[in-house]
Amino acid sequence: MTEPKFSHVDEQRRPTMVDVSEKQVTHRIAVAESRVAFPAEVADALRSNDLRSAKGPVFDTAIVAGVMGAKRTHELVPFCHPLRLESCKVAIELIGDVAVIRCTVAVHDKTGVEMEALTGASIAALTVYDMCKALSRDIVIGETRLLSKEGGKSDHRIEPA
Amino acid sequence: MTEPKFSHVDEQRRPTMVDVSEKQVTHRIAVAESRVAFPAEVADALRSNDLRSAKGPVFDTAIVAGVMGAKRTHELVPFCHPLRLESCKVAIELIGDVAVIRCTVAVHDKTGVEMEALTGASIAALTVYDMCKALSRDIVIGETRLLSKEGGKSDHRIEPA
Amino acid sequence: MTEPKFSHVDEQRRPTMVDVSEKQVTHRIAVAESRVAFPAEVADALRSNDLRSAKGPVFDTAIVAGVMGAKRTHELVPFCHPLRLESCKVAIELIGDVAVIRCTVAVHDKTGVEMEALTGASIAALTVYDMCKALSRDIVIGETRLLSKEGGKSDHRIEPA
Amino acid sequence: MTEPKFSHVDEQRRPTMVDVSEKQVTHRIAVAESRVAFPAEVADALRSNDLRSAKGPVFDTAIVAGVMGAKRTHELVPFCHPLRLESCKVAIELIGDVAVIRCTVAVHDKTGVEMEALTGASIAALTVYDMCKALSRDIVIGETRLLSKEGGKSDHRIEPA
Amino acid sequence: MTEPKFSHVDEQRRPTMVDVSEKQVTHRIAVAESRVAFPAEVADALRSNDLRSAKGPVFDTAIVAGVMGAKRTHELVPFCHPLRLESCKVAIELIGDVAVIRCTVAVHDKTGVEMEALTGASIAALTVYDMCKALSRDIVIGETRLLSKEGGKSDHRIEPA
Amino acid sequence: MTEPKFSHVDEQRRPTMVDVSEKQVTHRIAVAESRVAFPAEVADALRSNDLRSAKGPVFDTAIVAGVMGAKRTHELVPFCHPLRLESCKVAIELIGDVAVIRCTVAVHDKTGVEMEALTGASIAALTVYDMCKALSRDIVIGETRLLSKEGGKSDHRIEPA
Repeated sequence: MTEPKFSHVDEQRRPTMVDVSEKQVTHRIAVAESRVAFPAEVADALRSNDLRSAKGPVFDTAIVAGVMGAKRTHELVPFCHPLRLESCKVAIELIGDVAVIRCTVAVHDKTGVEMEALTGASIAALTVYDMCKALSRDIVIGETRLLSKEGGKSDHRIEPA
Repeated sequence: MTEPKFSHVDEQRRPTMVDVSEKQVTHRIAVAESRVAFPAEVADALRSNDLRSAKGPVFDTAIVAGVMGAKRTHELVPFCHPLRLESCKVAIELIGDVAVIRCTVAVHDKTGVEMEALTGASIAALTVYDMCKALSRDIVIGETRLLSKEGGKSDHRIEPA
Repeated sequence: MTEPKFSHVDEQRRPTMVDVSEKQVTHRIAVAESRVAFPAEVADALRSNDLRSAKGPVFDTAIVAGVMGAKRTHELVPFCHPLRLESCKVAIELIGDVAVIRCTVAVHDKTGVEMEALTGASIAALTVYDMCKALSRDIVIGETRLLSKEGGKSDHRIEPA
Repeated sequence: MTEPKFSHVDEQRRPTMVDVSEKQVTHRIAVAESRVAFPAEVADALRSNDLRSAKGPVFDTAIVAGVMGAKRTHELVPFCHPLRLESCKVAIELIGDVAVIRCTVAVHDKTGVEMEALTGASIAALTVYDMCKALSRDIVIGETRLLSKEGGKSDHRIEPA
Repeated sequence: MTEPKFSHVDEQRRPTMVDVSEKQVTHRIAVAESRVAFPAEVADALRSNDLRSAKGPVFDTAIVAGVMGAKRTHELVPFCHPLRLESCKVAIELIGDVAVIRCTVAVHDKTGVEMEALTGASIAALTVYDMCKALSRDIVIGETRLLSKEGGKSDHRIEPA
Repeated sequence: MTEPKFSHVDEQRRPTMVDVSEKQVTHRIAVAESRVAFPAEVADALRSNDLRSAKGPVFDTAIVAGVMGAKRTHELVPFCHPLRLESCKVAIELIGDVAVIRCTVAVHDKTGVEMEALTGASIAALTVYDMCKALSRDIVIGETRLLSKEGGKSDHRIEPA
């Protein structure tokens, strides 16, 4: 029976980057999701006409932050490789009292983009939180998870909850 | 009755930074928490002696990434003010199958550090995820929330779940 | 008669940062303006209802980019001091066929924020350009200039054209 | 008749990055120009022998800043793709009282480098401004424009004024 | 007899980036070394059991910083090209009173990675220094040198001292 | 007898940032030095008239890179606090076959600037190396050391070699 292997820990028990030199360049796509759960009055305020819908600038700002954050993944997560993202889309939908953020990243490269998708979704969630936090201290960033990953050694799809 | 106010949306319904010029410099501290939920075999592997405890380098790396991420909050969250953090501590504990990450940030400044604490916790969580993801696709970053915030207009403490 | 003095060139004729250690902390505010001149059809498209007003997301994105750019001035302009901006507002108005971008920056510090205001206006202008460039190659970023500067040794106000 | 299309605005009227996954890798070159207009005494001072020509360190610094700025375009302009620039040249000439800055960028990639050329020229212009601003408040950054663009779907050349 | 040629100085005696557009993509590897020399009591303390070996977190942190620094070489050294590093390994060994840091970088690209290897080794050395400096002011960062370079026009190997 | 104390390692043997919240703001200055040792022909070429002295642009570029690098110390060395540098001067002198780089940093803050001075000197040294490396593979970055440090708990001065 083989032990599970930590790809980022070497034999000296030191942290390490994975060498992807010999991997194939393939078209890799990953989708991640994060959620921001609002108290009802904050969700209502986001939708309100009286504020001429704050949703517009709040979501626009979070989309911009999420895309910029995804591009900087390798500066934030120590052993991520720098990648030339070819596409990064952040979509945000207000479903009930929850902002559902989905980040889709694509690249032709030797390594996958799941960390980029997760980072983009996380930074967008932090930005939504920041822009709404004056209204309530009870906002919570919910689960952040990988929804799908294609194009590497093994495709992988998890059904969203 | 007053409408709830989005501090980051101006009268033209455009996104905007809050002006803190006239606020008082006070000692501000914030604590945030994020959680990474592992399948049991990944949590076991992190603790395993046969791997000479991968926990060491994995958590060390996540702590470093979390602190560095917290320092860059204003580069990631568009309307956060640049602050000279005076302290940023990231602590990670493996409780059952969950890595509980706590990030505590302190500063003497005109604005609070809750976004710095939340960002530090999030980046540390992303790093733990990255370093363990080769072992399982079922790792999930759980809730990220503010635990406490002191030193601003109103202190605020939320009991951790 | 004294020679004009380049503050950023030392006696060895080498580039140099100005030492502001002994300057007073005062409230400093600067306003800068940049302009993006569109062909008429692009300006019309920005306003068009059929596109459900692209102006919203285009200007929101440019505001976010301008504020984030202003915060990074000291990383871009080599001898600018790192400053903790207390306020940075970017406003964009479409006047005829010209997007007029105004960036206002405030800080309590030992040195002024005119470069921050100019950088914020420039990055916002580049972003407007980027988001409209698929419509026409004849977009031009017009003059970028300082409109006013308060709080240093000598206040200074230039009337906008 | 087709409406003009904003490539960076999606159907929900949200800002978005363009997906270049399926584009061809070609050799792409762009040239942009920016201008810094000096009052005569500043232009004279830049040339003066008594200062042992401040032009040297001022222009050297602006060239360095322009190249470094061009490399960071995707961190500044939200929807620019990260690119591995293969060449970035900044040239500055003092013609009369105007510093004419030209930035030429080349890459083999799926998307053009006009934003990189414009950003490099803009950051170089801001740096020239910064290093001369102690001499006069009447310096103005003049027009910033694309001069040519080769290698994409359609070559494009605009004659410089 | 030909003059030696500064690749980064153009005919106008201005600093310049080298154009690598026409170079071949090859597998390029570089190894660099830096050394941190400790007073004996600091080296002993790093090894001490009473501190439960500070070596672990100190070296882990330096490894993370070195890898992250290597990835940012093109942001630090003005005329380095942005590269997608495929591997970056930092190894640190305490030999007598000297921490020997070795940084190995690999890429398939048009230009070599010796500056990335040297930068990674330097940033790791600065981090070791920072984490030990409270113990002594007599720590010195020793020589930083290229050990080998493969894959470009001419392979090159220097034997480590 | 007290054990030497690693300020950056906590009781759980994890890396940590030092909390400086309660320290005094004082005027802090640090000076660091790095050296680049050239083969004689490279040093001669740097001085040569036939190249119209490459020393100008090479040293200008290294000064700019050193100052920009010093400003980013807290992004590179994980547990350095972000500081608002008030002065950062890099001076380079060619003494025989050695470029002697001195970086002087000043700030009024709660923590010292020795890491900023060391980082500025190191990045300037790497830049000199980069710009001369096409002439020889035998260039070595020599010792990088702190020369003096004033303004903290205890002043400290080391005589340069």
